[in-house]
Amino acid sequence: MRSIDWVDDEIVLLDQTRLPHQERQLRVTTVDELVDAIRRLAVRGAPALGAAGALGVLLAVQEAARSGWDEPTLLAAVQRLRVARPTAVNLARGVDRVLARLPAGRAAVRDEALHVLTEDGAVNRAIAESGTRLLLGLVGSDRLRLYTHCNAGALATVERGTALGVVHSLLELGRLGLVYVGETRPLLQGSRLTAWELDRLGADYRIVVDGAGPGIIARGMVDAVVVGADRVAANGDVVNKVGTFPLALAAARAGVPFVVAAPESTIDAETASGDAVTIELRSQDEVLSVGDVRIAPDGAQGLNPAFDITPAELVTAVVTEQRVVRPADGEPAA
Amino acid sequence: MRSIDWVDDEIVLLDQTRLPHQERQLRVTTVDELVDAIRRLAVRGAPALGAAGALGVLLAVQEAARSGWDEPTLLAAVQRLRVARPTAVNLARGVDRVLARLPAGRAAVRDEALHVLTEDGAVNRAIAESGTRLLLGLVGSDRLRLYTHCNAGALATVERGTALGVVHSLLELGRLGLVYVGETRPLLQGSRLTAWELDRLGADYRIVVDGAGPGIIARGMVDAVVVGADRVAANGDVVNKVGTFPLALAAARAGVPFVVAAPESTIDAETASGDAVTIELRSQDEVLSVGDVRIAPDGAQGLNPAFDITPAELVTAVVTEQRVVRPADGEPAA
Repeated sequence: MRSIDWVDDEIVLLDQTRLPHQERQLRVTTVDELVDAIRRLAVRGAPALGAAGALGVLLAVQEAARSGWDEPTLLAAVQRLRVARPTAVNLARGVDRVLARLPAGRAAVRDEALHVLTEDGAVNRAIAESGTRLLLGLVGSDRLRLYTHCNAGALATVERGTALGVVHSLLELGRLGLVYVGETRPLLQGSRLTAWELDRLGADYRIVVDGAGPGIIARGMVDAVVVGADRVAANGDVVNKVGTFPLALAAARAGVPFVVAAPESTIDAETASGDAVTIELRSQDEVLSVGDVRIAPDGAQGLNPAFDITPAELVTAVVTEQRVVRPADGEPAA
Repeated sequence: MRSIDWVDDEIVLLDQTRLPHQERQLRVTTVDELVDAIRRLAVRGAPALGAAGALGVLLAVQEAARSGWDEPTLLAAVQRLRVARPTAVNLARGVDRVLARLPAGRAAVRDEALHVLTEDGAVNRAIAESGTRLLLGLVGSDRLRLYTHCNAGALATVERGTALGVVHSLLELGRLGLVYVGETRPLLQGSRLTAWELDRLGADYRIVVDGAGPGIIARGMVDAVVVGADRVAANGDVVNKVGTFPLALAAARAGVPFVVAAPESTIDAETASGDAVTIELRSQDEVLSVGDVRIAPDGAQGLNPAFDITPAELVTAVVTEQRVVRPADGEPAA
């Protein structure tokens, strides 16, 4: 099953805010519903957001025809979608790619949007194969003990996943040991989504709190850290879910490879380095509560940056469907 | 008010598992009740555990008289108390100190135990004064922006606190800016306890998820990191709540002072380095749930180390009531 798909002229997606307790499908028929689903992270993950952006343009074209929108109204709707999550370069990329087909008509828009979906599977298989080869070369052990953060799995893409695609391939080869999963506060994508995926794969895993990751790496319990990315700057700085940077710090200190598995579309030649990236600040309520349970005192204030920046010099490799870049060796990503 | 006290021949303590929503006092009359309170963290923090150990021996002597225990039964009860939290050297210290007075009779035991309580306030005032002087010397800014983790406040001691004692003193001097508080998963001592204390002090603070701390430090938003310690090894390695080590990594990289405020009793000359410390593994349920809310899939497994080790070379200073040790400069703590 795809985590996001186009069925009967609607976007169908697995509502990730309900996992792991409920597997509920969401049917999205308007651009504003899609913007809302993106903002509340019902759909998330860089490649899945690329697909959402692509399908969102198709949705907008359909909605324009249905509601008699003029072109400025259509473009305004597409623009709302394009900026629904400012850090996710793939969302804007997905939008722009399909929007470029608008002059060619609705059928061309539809073909391009659906092509984005099918491409994703091939891209992820290529990343998994290349990442697996890299890790087996870097690490001597028979069964690799990995650490991952957030969710760079099938749920973050259309299918298979990037970082979890590598995990999946190692498992198929019989070369996977234990996977440590950072729970990924505030929204717990690790304990809710990655654990759910690893469970379905039959992988052996342990959920840990985010603060525990660096200590676990320092104690020699991890052979490699493998994560996805929301954006990779031209110099190789990696923008990913908050909590990624401390893992890279610990990995560098321990001499453990820190590997980023991400499609070429994540690499942003327009962004010279991480310094140029505006970090999305999300609602403080996500920090002050867990789900519906308030944990902080009444009146407390929180600060909720959604991402952090891992400097290129701490990134052993960025594995894409086309190449392996080595930022720590001074190799730029774009 | 003291967080732990001796009233009417009973231990009275503020039940920290109920904060910040409920301020409930717990009255403890047996050693086994105290062991239970320590294990479920109703009382926690290295200095407060020292006081609990001291008062626990007094409780045991009283219980022995009431129940007609022979000496082996008394010593067995004291031993259960002594090891209730293996990483907390202060607990065993508090026990041993008062137990040494046993041959001198019950009045001597009582005097020594109560002396531990009164001493705590004086020790913390001395730490706060010394830590404040150190920080004002290290940091040029008018109002210091600090980052703290877990709870090294009044609640972790008998009164005033260690790291939060420093925060309190800077606030009194008009030299405190914003305090960032790591929420401290899994048990959220930061968002529950430290936020509650800072709120009562009237300090300006922001709660952040633990994974965000290193990125916030890297972005130049923090002038110094100030934390407590559960144990300091002879070489200056610091054992503290899981999630401390990543802050020290980020602080060292950013050139931000990483300061540990802790009483002399926390320094353990018997422990050569952090490598010799057994890290307490607590129940995985703490990771798989938040309070009563289950977050992970059914059948998921967690790993829950309670502490991590910050290597001496990342520790700018350990401030005690007697001295300032500089582990990062190669100065041993014992």
